[in-house]
Amino acid sequence: MTDHGGQEAATWTLTLSCPNRPGIVAAIATTLYEADGNIIEAQQFDDTETGVFFMRVVFTGRADAERTEWLRARLDAVASRFRMNWTLHDRAVRRRVLLMVSKFDHCLVDLLYRWRIGELPMLPTAIVANHPRETYAHIDMGDIPFHYLPVTRDNKAEQEEELWSLVQRTNSELVVLARYMQVLSDSLSARLSGQCINIHHSFLPGFKGARPYHQAHARGVKLIGATAHYVTADLDEGPIIEQDVERVSHSDTPDDLVRKGRDIERRVLSRAVRCHLDDRVILNGTKTVVFGD
Amino acid sequence: MTDHGGQEAATWTLTLSCPNRPGIVAAIATTLYEADGNIIEAQQFDDTETGVFFMRVVFTGRADAERTEWLRARLDAVASRFRMNWTLHDRAVRRRVLLMVSKFDHCLVDLLYRWRIGELPMLPTAIVANHPRETYAHIDMGDIPFHYLPVTRDNKAEQEEELWSLVQRTNSELVVLARYMQVLSDSLSARLSGQCINIHHSFLPGFKGARPYHQAHARGVKLIGATAHYVTADLDEGPIIEQDVERVSHSDTPDDLVRKGRDIERRVLSRAVRCHLDDRVILNGTKTVVFGD
Amino acid sequence: MTDHGGQEAATWTLTLSCPNRPGIVAAIATTLYEADGNIIEAQQFDDTETGVFFMRVVFTGRADAERTEWLRARLDAVASRFRMNWTLHDRAVRRRVLLMVSKFDHCLVDLLYRWRIGELPMLPTAIVANHPRETYAHIDMGDIPFHYLPVTRDNKAEQEEELWSLVQRTNSELVVLARYMQVLSDSLSARLSGQCINIHHSFLPGFKGARPYHQAHARGVKLIGATAHYVTADLDEGPIIEQDVERVSHSDTPDDLVRKGRDIERRVLSRAVRCHLDDRVILNGTKTVVFGD
Amino acid sequence: MTDHGGQEAATWTLTLSCPNRPGIVAAIATTLYEADGNIIEAQQFDDTETGVFFMRVVFTGRADAERTEWLRARLDAVASRFRMNWTLHDRAVRRRVLLMVSKFDHCLVDLLYRWRIGELPMLPTAIVANHPRETYAHIDMGDIPFHYLPVTRDNKAEQEEELWSLVQRTNSELVVLARYMQVLSDSLSARLSGQCINIHHSFLPGFKGARPYHQAHARGVKLIGATAHYVTADLDEGPIIEQDVERVSHSDTPDDLVRKGRDIERRVLSRAVRCHLDDRVILNGTKTVVFGD
Repeated sequence: MTDHGGQEAATWTLTLSCPNRPGIVAAIATTLYEADGNIIEAQQFDDTETGVFFMRVVFTGRADAERTEWLRARLDAVASRFRMNWTLHDRAVRRRVLLMVSKFDHCLVDLLYRWRIGELPMLPTAIVANHPRETYAHIDMGDIPFHYLPVTRDNKAEQEEELWSLVQRTNSELVVLARYMQVLSDSLSARLSGQCINIHHSFLPGFKGARPYHQAHARGVKLIGATAHYVTADLDEGPIIEQDVERVSHSDTPDDLVRKGRDIERRVLSRAVRCHLDDRVILNGTKTVVFGD
Repeated sequence: MTDHGGQEAATWTLTLSCPNRPGIVAAIATTLYEADGNIIEAQQFDDTETGVFFMRVVFTGRADAERTEWLRARLDAVASRFRMNWTLHDRAVRRRVLLMVSKFDHCLVDLLYRWRIGELPMLPTAIVANHPRETYAHIDMGDIPFHYLPVTRDNKAEQEEELWSLVQRTNSELVVLARYMQVLSDSLSARLSGQCINIHHSFLPGFKGARPYHQAHARGVKLIGATAHYVTADLDEGPIIEQDVERVSHSDTPDDLVRKGRDIERRVLSRAVRCHLDDRVILNGTKTVVFGD
Repeated sequence: MTDHGGQEAATWTLTLSCPNRPGIVAAIATTLYEADGNIIEAQQFDDTETGVFFMRVVFTGRADAERTEWLRARLDAVASRFRMNWTLHDRAVRRRVLLMVSKFDHCLVDLLYRWRIGELPMLPTAIVANHPRETYAHIDMGDIPFHYLPVTRDNKAEQEEELWSLVQRTNSELVVLARYMQVLSDSLSARLSGQCINIHHSFLPGFKGARPYHQAHARGVKLIGATAHYVTADLDEGPIIEQDVERVSHSDTPDDLVRKGRDIERRVLSRAVRCHLDDRVILNGTKTVVFGD
Repeated sequence: MTDHGGQEAATWTLTLSCPNRPGIVAAIATTLYEADGNIIEAQQFDDTETGVFFMRVVFTGRADAERTEWLRARLDAVASRFRMNWTLHDRAVRRRVLLMVSKFDHCLVDLLYRWRIGELPMLPTAIVANHPRETYAHIDMGDIPFHYLPVTRDNKAEQEEELWSLVQRTNSELVVLARYMQVLSDSLSARLSGQCINIHHSFLPGFKGARPYHQAHARGVKLIGATAHYVTADLDEGPIIEQDVERVSHSDTPDDLVRKGRDIERRVLSRAVRCHLDDRVILNGTKTVVFGD
């Protein structure tokens, strides 16, 4: 919290999307100015295909509950004039995140490390796995509650209810599938729309479905990749947040691809989660707008 | 030119920098709104170290001389209130560019090709070389005047005057040193400040000076690179616009590095020129702000 | 040609593949040693899935017809013992290459430039286009014969016969489809098996077929790519030689992707052609072995 | 251990370097063949500048002590004929590695994770830190002994003796400075020649010495990098094993560079260690030969 005109100061991120028409930026900037806000970073994007305008603004202002309420009311008024979807987050408040994992724990370990050293501004609410705690014996989970929810054909609906209940009880705002290898049902996917990030271990749309590294090896590609996307009912078709690749060669076995892939998965998932936590990602139909840092 | 409310429409790029304080974005956005401008893209950057604020706005508006004059006057008023440096360019008007080359012509050939197919929105005013026209026998220079200005220790000052005169006579707004291997004098560098882009064939600050690929080979680096920067009196120390690298190995000879380097130089220089032409680059002391696309 | 024991010297590239079993390297190395050859570079690959062994050797030796004949005979004997496919090329002899192009000429221009400055060790035998010569008015084709072979549904078989005849008359060893947008027939693909390289403007296996950049834009991927592969009857399924990608963002229009894609296509195709000319690529069923440089 | 002609089989890596002259590959390949070895991977490099030849061979053979002794004797004979330096390692025997760390533990955590899941074929013999054990409270070090060796101006020589004694007592074959921030003395550097890998947090030769990310920020570079190299008495001048970079922008603060740098450091160091453990790195004066995988 830095000083802001003799007052306690806060930093906020505002995101919005609405049908494009003249005056949006002026209305927002003027509103923030009248609220004594100082814009320190802003990005806009005008999707000329759909006519939708997207904006993200980071600004500092007084950390004063009354002032904040007043600002929210003013933003509400602007939003209703322009038919905006909008969010406003105090950047000092860490987002609550539920982490899910299956047997391969490299993404989980990576996210926990980045959280521990302060790189990911989140508050892990729970770790949910379909393998028991001893599978992750070497992981220091600190105070984060661990939940073992094994999934079979028979208990899947039940376990998903339990998961959903856990999301609600923990007030989790984001669910991260850190190589969680169970497919979520359509209904749970719908409930978690825009709030659930998955890492798929291929450069989508290539090699959807199972064993993508084996598919890649069989096809003889010269680069392999990973894709972080929001989960939707349509498997491996959700809006893409981030992708990356690495070079492979004819001498790489499927096991080598799996090994190289772990590095790609880790960095792609952590970047996607970081962008989400930093309010850089806005849904745009089946695609995303990702404002770069 | 698209339609703009029944009028002929134009698209403009506004760039500005000034000491940061609240109200800048509001003032600019409101001014553009009052001029019937519609913001389609905008980026801001607040340099918290120096307290300088940078902004780039692309907007559409009526292509009407009177209206434009009125807008310029209003922007002048805002600029003087906030002590802004600012530029406003009609995006339909191509920038005038003078190209310089020595023996290696791969960057020149590349820039001309990109210009010819409409990828680089520029108007080449002249090609200046310190080798005669026959050195470039295979290059179709179209209607671009070619000037042979060989440089020796004795005639350097004279030839630089001729070059400067040519820049002025052709109203060139940008000079591109496309592997032009003569060092410009301090005084000419100063005159061309912020208007002259060079490509250095190393990843600066590594391997300044002569024969950087041979230096890189001798040091045994595993990546080589190229750097596009504005020319200053301080050789190879100018503000960096763009850099890129490529992997090399122990088996690459200096000649292999030269070959791989050509590809890096081409893409780094063309990206830097493109960014400059698109008003994405703003000087920030000895550094640059480059608003991404 | 460097000196080789007081004799004129030559440099050769030998490639081979055969079922793996002990003694292959020893047999080859001993044969070359007995022929006074000096190995300066060698790579091996053992495909443990198929049990096939691949090898590429660069060696210097006397440039003496009799000696070469003797070496070929010896290699023949070794090859028949190990059931090898093998090739032996004098590296001073440039490979004969027929280039094909449609409307977009960036790959052709790039290949010709690299050829002209000596970067690609080939001898262009002909340029074949389905657009007339004036489409490429700005390209200096030097002495390379240009052939206009427009293709319609009706004349396709006929024009392919003409093309095949041209390949034979010019003794072309390689055909490069430098953004040639006509699909070759199954029979021509079969005739050119392993001798015809195509550049597909997507990161295969994603976005096969028409308008891949538009497909990529619609899917919202964060990287786009290009793929160079040998042509087979199965469209976009041929053995991949080289691939690369570049980062794109939500703000890139399909036209931006086309522009960024040109750079990727150029470098992917030229690398693939270079690898082929340098005998670095060996077919391995539906895949390739590419020995790196 | 796979079957090898009814016998227990082993896989070996042989590396060698010697003055180049005809017959090296033949002599080696014949020797391995006579020892019933089957070459499954081999790479050669002829440094034409220095006339030194480098070779790495992976082969399978009988895991039989007598046979191995016989092979070593034969290789000794070949080596003395060609004046070779050579090493032969049973690939099933993990190399003994001592890890050193200071305050920032991301590289250590990464190496330990890769070791734990079997990605790095090493046996950690000790973790040495100049900070106490509680600094690394969250790290599960398993059975690896931890040694706290704080270094001051006064005790440096003494602590280095302790370290050297530890290296010897533990039979460590490699020391990894995983962001260990103390400069080793000339004498210790000399003792550990070719056996000590450091990670420097810049793209050398740029930004040697202290606070390289702050130097990079001040210079305004557009990419930052990291370099893994063997430690020599000449600080930041040791033979480079691996380097990599990542894109940064004007909006990245020094803290952002530190964060992005952690990812680069991790992957560069782990790749270098992996290459060393896999006998892919051979010293070539002040440079390295790194045979790719």
